[in-house]
Amino acid sequence: MPDNNQLHPFDQAVKLAAVAPYAYQGHIPQTYANMVGPFGGIIVAVILNGILSHKECQGVPISVTVNFAGPIADAPFALALGLIRTNRSNQHWTAELTQGSEVATTASAVLANRQETWMMSEARAPSAPKPEDVASWPAPSEPKWIQRYDFKFIRGKATLSGQPAKDSESLLWVRDEPERPLDFLSLAALSDVFFPRVFIRRQKLGVAGTVSLTTYFHADDSSLKRQATRPVLAAARGQRFYSGYFDQVAELWSDEGELLASSIQMVYFKD
Amino acid sequence: MPDNNQLHPFDQAVKLAAVAPYAYQGHIPQTYANMVGPFGGIIVAVILNGILSHKECQGVPISVTVNFAGPIADAPFALALGLIRTNRSNQHWTAELTQGSEVATTASAVLANRQETWMMSEARAPSAPKPEDVASWPAPSEPKWIQRYDFKFIRGKATLSGQPAKDSESLLWVRDEPERPLDFLSLAALSDVFFPRVFIRRQKLGVAGTVSLTTYFHADDSSLKRQATRPVLAAARGQRFYSGYFDQVAELWSDEGELLASSIQMVYFKD
Repeated sequence: MPDNNQLHPFDQAVKLAAVAPYAYQGHIPQTYANMVGPFGGIIVAVILNGILSHKECQGVPISVTVNFAGPIADAPFALALGLIRTNRSNQHWTAELTQGSEVATTASAVLANRQETWMMSEARAPSAPKPEDVASWPAPSEPKWIQRYDFKFIRGKATLSGQPAKDSESLLWVRDEPERPLDFLSLAALSDVFFPRVFIRRQKLGVAGTVSLTTYFHADDSSLKRQATRPVLAAARGQRFYSGYFDQVAELWSDEGELLASSIQMVYFKD
Repeated sequence: MPDNNQLHPFDQAVKLAAVAPYAYQGHIPQTYANMVGPFGGIIVAVILNGILSHKECQGVPISVTVNFAGPIADAPFALALGLIRTNRSNQHWTAELTQGSEVATTASAVLANRQETWMMSEARAPSAPKPEDVASWPAPSEPKWIQRYDFKFIRGKATLSGQPAKDSESLLWVRDEPERPLDFLSLAALSDVFFPRVFIRRQKLGVAGTVSLTTYFHADDSSLKRQATRPVLAAARGQRFYSGYFDQVAELWSDEGELLASSIQMVYFKD
């Protein structure tokens, strides 16, 4: 096993030590720190890593839901898994991430033994210039997780000008920084890579935090292998902002126009 | 308490008996039967009913995720709740529905104490003729749950002609049958009222079953009260059908154009 320092920062961050048959311990490093606690996407990835690396795991992920019940402190956490049921074509898991006596995060996931069937891609990737023709965003140094991605905004950049935008949509090319071959863990993390839509629509910072996130995986191993380290095309928009909460709908596309993941999250915000 | 026969079929179906502090027993009647087991929407509603009627419950639902791990037999079930965490602005729950030693369904929900904030409805309701100008669908007698709704299709009806449709979109007015004032439980059930998108796109029946469903509530008590018994405008579409699974994105609108709920589900299918 390589020394920690030789691992990609993403792989360092999702690392878990097995402590019992369905229990792990981990500690998300400061490299993925957000305003309060770690970047949500790395939390999704670390939980999914626990499931996918479990010896009872069967199939590839098709669905993951993570509920963020409270902040995760810069300290070790315990991750407990529940293997709910293994069917012929899918497998159901639950997970709970705790620090001390407090549950910080709950999650559930469905894995599947995919079989070839009729197929159809109905949704179309938004048209976009090639990634090599879009400039990388000079990311601010805080929060730190932002530096773990290469963002190339096509539209819907956070200008924070205070001048409201006409909508909350963003479209961008994004990949791990430094480059890392796409896998289910990094794809899960990428589904949370969008800044809170209220910041984009209002072009000002505020208090916001995801309470629940669901990601569906349409990619399989061959899609991931084809994509390799190239950036994915990422699109997100808010639908309704109301009384402290808004939803945020997102899609992640391969650079060949394949829908790799669709995602939705509910976000708390304060004026 | 009224006699069972005086209750609306929906209220009969979601009825639970408390058997311990965080445990209920229930039995979904045949009035909401689907091909195999009960209609998914009524399962979501019965779980949400357990949470919302619990004495520790604080706030209104903003998010619910249900994972369908196996069929529910026409027999009593046990529903166990977990109150994960109560924060100042929201509350996190988990739930497990079992029959005998088998877990049929797992779920999680987030409730919130909504506070007035900046608001914006970015998504727009699709244009549609008024419900009184659309004919009710002469629903088939099986599966039985279909008769518990009044469907008025504007487009994307299941013709089952075998001639593939150009897309998998449906737009319809829909309400409980007989009429029932909209509440969070019926709104949750309505988020699953759409036939599997693969049936619409291919216009033929097959094997299909939801494995995971997430619904976000944008409505509050005042939105529900305004809507009362009138039909909601319901829209759904599939994005990608691939190797045995497809996603299905949906929105539910009031007849005044207010987004009441947004939803996404992952569905298993076989050719």
